[in-house]
Amino acid sequence: MRQRIIIALDAMGGDHAPGSVLQGANLAIERFPEVDFILFGIENELRPHLALLPKLASRSSITHTNEVVSGDAKPSQALRSGRRSSMRLAIDAVAEGRADCVVSGGNTGALMAMAKMALRMLPGIDRPAMASSFPTMRGESVMLDLGANVECDAENLVQFALMGDVFARTVLGRTRPLIGLLNIGSEELKGNDAVRGASARLQQPGFPLHFHGFVEGTDITAGTVDVIVTDGFTGNVALKTAEGTVELMTEFTRAAFRYSLLARIGYLFSKGALAKLRERLDPRAYNGAVFLGLDGIAVKSHGSADAVGFANAIGVAVDMKINGFLEKMRQGIAALASSGSLMEKPQSASL
Amino acid sequence: MRQRIIIALDAMGGDHAPGSVLQGANLAIERFPEVDFILFGIENELRPHLALLPKLASRSSITHTNEVVSGDAKPSQALRSGRRSSMRLAIDAVAEGRADCVVSGGNTGALMAMAKMALRMLPGIDRPAMASSFPTMRGESVMLDLGANVECDAENLVQFALMGDVFARTVLGRTRPLIGLLNIGSEELKGNDAVRGASARLQQPGFPLHFHGFVEGTDITAGTVDVIVTDGFTGNVALKTAEGTVELMTEFTRAAFRYSLLARIGYLFSKGALAKLRERLDPRAYNGAVFLGLDGIAVKSHGSADAVGFANAIGVAVDMKINGFLEKMRQGIAALASSGSLMEKPQSASL
Repeated sequence: MRQRIIIALDAMGGDHAPGSVLQGANLAIERFPEVDFILFGIENELRPHLALLPKLASRSSITHTNEVVSGDAKPSQALRSGRRSSMRLAIDAVAEGRADCVVSGGNTGALMAMAKMALRMLPGIDRPAMASSFPTMRGESVMLDLGANVECDAENLVQFALMGDVFARTVLGRTRPLIGLLNIGSEELKGNDAVRGASARLQQPGFPLHFHGFVEGTDITAGTVDVIVTDGFTGNVALKTAEGTVELMTEFTRAAFRYSLLARIGYLFSKGALAKLRERLDPRAYNGAVFLGLDGIAVKSHGSADAVGFANAIGVAVDMKINGFLEKMRQGIAALASSGSLMEKPQSASL
Repeated sequence: MRQRIIIALDAMGGDHAPGSVLQGANLAIERFPEVDFILFGIENELRPHLALLPKLASRSSITHTNEVVSGDAKPSQALRSGRRSSMRLAIDAVAEGRADCVVSGGNTGALMAMAKMALRMLPGIDRPAMASSFPTMRGESVMLDLGANVECDAENLVQFALMGDVFARTVLGRTRPLIGLLNIGSEELKGNDAVRGASARLQQPGFPLHFHGFVEGTDITAGTVDVIVTDGFTGNVALKTAEGTVELMTEFTRAAFRYSLLARIGYLFSKGALAKLRERLDPRAYNGAVFLGLDGIAVKSHGSADAVGFANAIGVAVDMKINGFLEKMRQGIAALASSGSLMEKPQSASL
């Protein structure tokens, strides 16, 4: 029998919660027979939905709470006054070992602050990072940090490289992920101290990651590497710029097809092709930003995600659990530490 | 009679120089009857092209030099040993008042370093910035810095805002450009010290620019503002991420149309529409990154640009000259200085 996986689900987090969240959980249950849920939220609001989702109802328990972290709550505020919120109770279930992963579509800053506080960092990791996979010319890659850390030093970036490596192995199925450091040119001398310092460290002989070198913005979607490492400011801007550019091109394409009668006819023939295109770029398929570096699995869904999007976010959490993300992180940290100590200890056989 | 404009053209700068450069100049001459050229380069190589472009030949003079800055020369190297290069001589022509603008498709770093050295900064501006316009949902906007300054403080960003404002007025034809500061969220507390400091300054009562506030990556292509202000690291990554995303979607669209017979038929009908789409996103239309903040007009073309691209880069230089970019910059700096001094001098009528 396969190992059971218990997901602590913040049923109140998301623009259309709890409906979209519970429908997503129901989809996930069909895809992952090994998953059970603990649903955190206002019981009176969950019950009517569960009545329509008998499969999910049979594989879930409810932990009732009336408190919900609002979308505009500041992280510090949520930490202080959100201790009985559905989000916090879901995180606590993971911290206390009653669940394997927490998934929430609620307030990102609050989720990050609470998860960091309750789950704590993995020993050897200084800061958590947000990561997400995205489509490229050659399949999928992962980028981090996407906004958790506005300023990063070289050591943070090296740790992000490790986290990205383990994510690419456990979620994207890469055997030896290729790591790239985002910069404004591929030459050694380009960039700020943080990227130059991280590059020097990642190039050390014996360093246990597969480092490609610097990459540029165009390499993100080209799929030049499996893991794009950057600070949270740049990563957030890059991700949102890519999203905006997809929207722009979609709108321009639509406008082009409205342009003439011939184009309108072409559109009718091309509908299937365009649907295929939308599918390849479907943001729902890339839903689920992960907080890496914590001693626990925490996945953030887009607040606006529908059932399919939520199911995919749950899927990321399941992949991380099944494929031993936390165990592999511990092994990676140990390998990093031993390579690091080799680096700092000069070879002085003559003494 | 209209004022004559003299362009100092680095005829040797670009992947297909001098052919593409001279063909571009020839196109520009048809579009701008007031333009004359000084062509800097290897005379023996220019003559055969000019023989085929009699119109350009009649409106150009050649300043011969055998030296060309190579594409991989470091800026410091170009500064030291490139004093007789076509690029440097073209810049010197502007510095010495023999030409109004310099246009080059050569080595970006060398061009920036030489232009800064020979043209000097406008008094009141600390650092030059690279700017370029790009297509959005609502027309065109301009973003800066695109890579000249890896690290920027609040004062640099405020100066970039001024340069972007003047560019949007003189090249994009905006009467009162809306300025946005690129950040990872629109809340006051987000971001690093530089963006928060710049935001505080731009919000001061009486500040002579039209400040929208923080914008995010998605706002770049949405056209939320006319001017996107950011540091050179983030701006460079954002620009290249957008370019990469356009390439990804173009490739995905192509693949979608190859997907089925129906789609192939649809493609035939849609060819015109897709050509229209390509035209709206044509990078040649947005060729010409400008170095702002210098006491002279210097435009960098993409090295890979064809004749149409080069003509557009020349067009940007012409627009800046005709619409008085440098004069408006001086006025803007004066307005900034007087608003700044008002700010620092507390109202102390009682003394």
